[in-house]
Amino acid sequence: MNRQTDELPLYAAIDLGSNSFHMLVIRKIAGRIQIIDRIKRKVRLAAGLDGDNCLSEEAMQRGWQCLRLFAERLYDIPPSHICIVATAALRAAKNANTFITTAETILNYPVKIISGEEEARLIYQGVAHTTGGALSRLVVDIGGGSTELITGNADSISQLVSLPMGCVTWLERYFNDRTLNTNNFHQAELAAHHLLLPIANKLKYQGWDICVGASGTVQALQEIMVAQGMDEQITLDKLQQLKERAIQCGKLEELEIPGLTLERALVFPSGLSILIAIFETLNVNSMNLAGGALREGLIYNMLNQPVEKDIRQTTIEAMQYQYAIDRQQADRVSQLTHHFCRQLKEIWDINESMTEMLHWASQIHEIGLSIDFKQSPQHAAYLLNHTEMPGFTPAQRKLLAALLINQTDIINLSVLAEQNALSLPQAQRLVRLLRIAILLCRSRHSDRIPNITLIGQGEQLNLKISKEWLSLYPLQTEALQQESRWQTYSHLPLVIIKN
Amino acid sequence: MNRQTDELPLYAAIDLGSNSFHMLVIRKIAGRIQIIDRIKRKVRLAAGLDGDNCLSEEAMQRGWQCLRLFAERLYDIPPSHICIVATAALRAAKNANTFITTAETILNYPVKIISGEEEARLIYQGVAHTTGGALSRLVVDIGGGSTELITGNADSISQLVSLPMGCVTWLERYFNDRTLNTNNFHQAELAAHHLLLPIANKLKYQGWDICVGASGTVQALQEIMVAQGMDEQITLDKLQQLKERAIQCGKLEELEIPGLTLERALVFPSGLSILIAIFETLNVNSMNLAGGALREGLIYNMLNQPVEKDIRQTTIEAMQYQYAIDRQQADRVSQLTHHFCRQLKEIWDINESMTEMLHWASQIHEIGLSIDFKQSPQHAAYLLNHTEMPGFTPAQRKLLAALLINQTDIINLSVLAEQNALSLPQAQRLVRLLRIAILLCRSRHSDRIPNITLIGQGEQLNLKISKEWLSLYPLQTEALQQESRWQTYSHLPLVIIKN
Repeated sequence: MNRQTDELPLYAAIDLGSNSFHMLVIRKIAGRIQIIDRIKRKVRLAAGLDGDNCLSEEAMQRGWQCLRLFAERLYDIPPSHICIVATAALRAAKNANTFITTAETILNYPVKIISGEEEARLIYQGVAHTTGGALSRLVVDIGGGSTELITGNADSISQLVSLPMGCVTWLERYFNDRTLNTNNFHQAELAAHHLLLPIANKLKYQGWDICVGASGTVQALQEIMVAQGMDEQITLDKLQQLKERAIQCGKLEELEIPGLTLERALVFPSGLSILIAIFETLNVNSMNLAGGALREGLIYNMLNQPVEKDIRQTTIEAMQYQYAIDRQQADRVSQLTHHFCRQLKEIWDINESMTEMLHWASQIHEIGLSIDFKQSPQHAAYLLNHTEMPGFTPAQRKLLAALLINQTDIINLSVLAEQNALSLPQAQRLVRLLRIAILLCRSRHSDRIPNITLIGQGEQLNLKISKEWLSLYPLQTEALQQESRWQTYSHLPLVIIKN
Repeated sequence: MNRQTDELPLYAAIDLGSNSFHMLVIRKIAGRIQIIDRIKRKVRLAAGLDGDNCLSEEAMQRGWQCLRLFAERLYDIPPSHICIVATAALRAAKNANTFITTAETILNYPVKIISGEEEARLIYQGVAHTTGGALSRLVVDIGGGSTELITGNADSISQLVSLPMGCVTWLERYFNDRTLNTNNFHQAELAAHHLLLPIANKLKYQGWDICVGASGTVQALQEIMVAQGMDEQITLDKLQQLKERAIQCGKLEELEIPGLTLERALVFPSGLSILIAIFETLNVNSMNLAGGALREGLIYNMLNQPVEKDIRQTTIEAMQYQYAIDRQQADRVSQLTHHFCRQLKEIWDINESMTEMLHWASQIHEIGLSIDFKQSPQHAAYLLNHTEMPGFTPAQRKLLAALLINQTDIINLSVLAEQNALSLPQAQRLVRLLRIAILLCRSRHSDRIPNITLIGQGEQLNLKISKEWLSLYPLQTEALQQESRWQTYSHLPLVIIKN
């Protein structure tokens, strides 16, 4: 009974940001990173910079007070497992030295003020380790005092830029009267435009396949879209709608958008104005939320882990390991769903990414057994809805959960309708194929899986199977007949044709 | 990444009971038994016995049909990992041989008709492996066609009896007119009395500390009590109340008791009458539900595992391993709660079993981290509410879940009130001690845990701590102050006294 369950080495990453100070304590376990403590304080350092870029005494005191709390958690962590960096506000502050000297005394550990470029590099690393898609990408991180823009491919960076604009500095500068009107937004966007213009062509020339956003602004957008039942793609259209909505609210204190939390509301309009300028200047079509950024970059940097080729594969394998999933059984179900997808590709319009999602669902469909056989589909959905899965977006995770909770028994259409990665008809098609594949693999033996032909006629699915096989496998025959009833109840006819 | 996640050897246990046939497929993984398939069919073999104790052709056909399903799942399981037994109905049937010969051809595996004594022995083993309490026990299992009574201590049996009465045979005999009235119950109880009387003295002479019940009747009682918010102890009083309630319903088809499922309703009155007779004849004070019985006995028998001295310890260790819990941290929190319990033992009336529950809660309080740091107390409660925990009763599991969901943040009193292992004031006391212990162990270092004196004044708790320690640990001081507010909000004043 000895696994590495006892004291594993801990790692700590501290980020002295312009708006908040963050501390993350993690342990590395069986290829996964497990967060065991997280402390965050809104220190608002940037707000304490005067016109002359000097940090006020009060702001420094707020910062030191926070660091005293952090110091307590650092005591027993090996120095090589600690990384502490400071960003924009301390880059800008003329009296940064004063702050840092005392900070280092409190922490008993060096604090590094990193350059904008280094910050960009770390952010890119954090994104590369946690965000799926092996394509070339543009990463955008709007911080409190700076915005980083990076292009790259897998783990290599091609361009990087750090601009001195952030949601806190833009709040102070353009929404200082706490009014949300066309003019304030216009001024804020214009200023962002001016900073972006000189670097826009170089970035655009580099190009990218996907755009990924980190930071609170993008997180807030994601939450708003989930709360409003939209898909998770951030587009200029949606940003403009949210701006209109904000202007209708009139004042920062009265800003109310379904899904926007109080905590994120204050710097939301300023972050939004910067993001709109980025979309317009760089012709961004759509953006997704990153799985991590600066702090994750610091952690992966310390762990010295290479960027995985396929992060999703790594994530799924780690889950198979953690939950002791029978991988051979997972592969059997996967292969059968691939086979079904090929058969129905044209008539059911099953694209590559749908086939992939079905593959991932198959790979972990038995995850719920680790909790209990009883209600195991429900347990699977619970685990997927609450586990961080690097490489998968929140909407993809929700789709996987919706597929897995529906792996057997009556089909719960409302769960399928609530996910927003696929349309309901598409999600229904995937779930039907997954259910049939799981059912036919119940013997846990590759030689006993029947030859099946699936033919789609609209939403009707005809399943051709040999009489001989059916007579040899009464248990699965019974289950197949029941499955035909379940699908048909949901107005998704499944017709079994014996030949 | 290679753990035993790939094809692990499977085991199958099949039990051809008088009412139902059951099949259980499991795999053994890291000291745990994981159920991966379960098939049950209500074959009602006993109902197919005529007055001459001959199985009807229809009953045998029903049985064989079910075995064809089971056979399909047996294909690839090694013969030494399969155990198939038949009980009372086939013991009684004159033409059992006819049934068994065809059954063995279908299953391609021998079927053993076990004697009542052997059944009792296996039931005891199933209970001993899954039910807590190292004390001497009386085990009661009311099957479809027989009832087993066994006394024993840990893994050794002192007395065993198998009586030819069961909930199916008693249904056929005494509730044949489907009427629930005083007379039918009286006749059923009387007949059970007659069978029990000759063996009562021997069993009573042997004696027992706790009485444990297996089988559907006891399971149904457990579910009724949970649904009605009662504690989980089955007493004669409660049984008599349920009998009254059943008589009020008048007819079997109209039997409606909150918490009684349709599936269990038919044989509930007959099982109840047998249980009442057992309580009366053997002077049983109270009974708890067993964690397992015959099928579990078959499985553990095949696995050749010794009965653990302390099943709960084994269960908790297996969970610590499965969820990669930091055991040193668990021990720190445990030790601190033990220390607190000693301090408050008298004034807060903290008995041994409460101290134990707090110990188990401490040992697995970080289980939720395995899913995510965010909402980890909620994840802990989910896992505990849904994981089989041999050695713990359902009510104890629910208490542990209620403690763990309340390990930090605002105290949810309603969750504490909903558990029924302890009174609300007792549960509140435990949760308060657990919270303080977890909080003070946050540094994950034994040397940094302060010396604390806890003094109870009614529900007010005075916590004495040195000024010096507080000034050295600002993070924990802040947390302690917040904790004082949280407890006090819940009208459970926590006063921090600096000395």
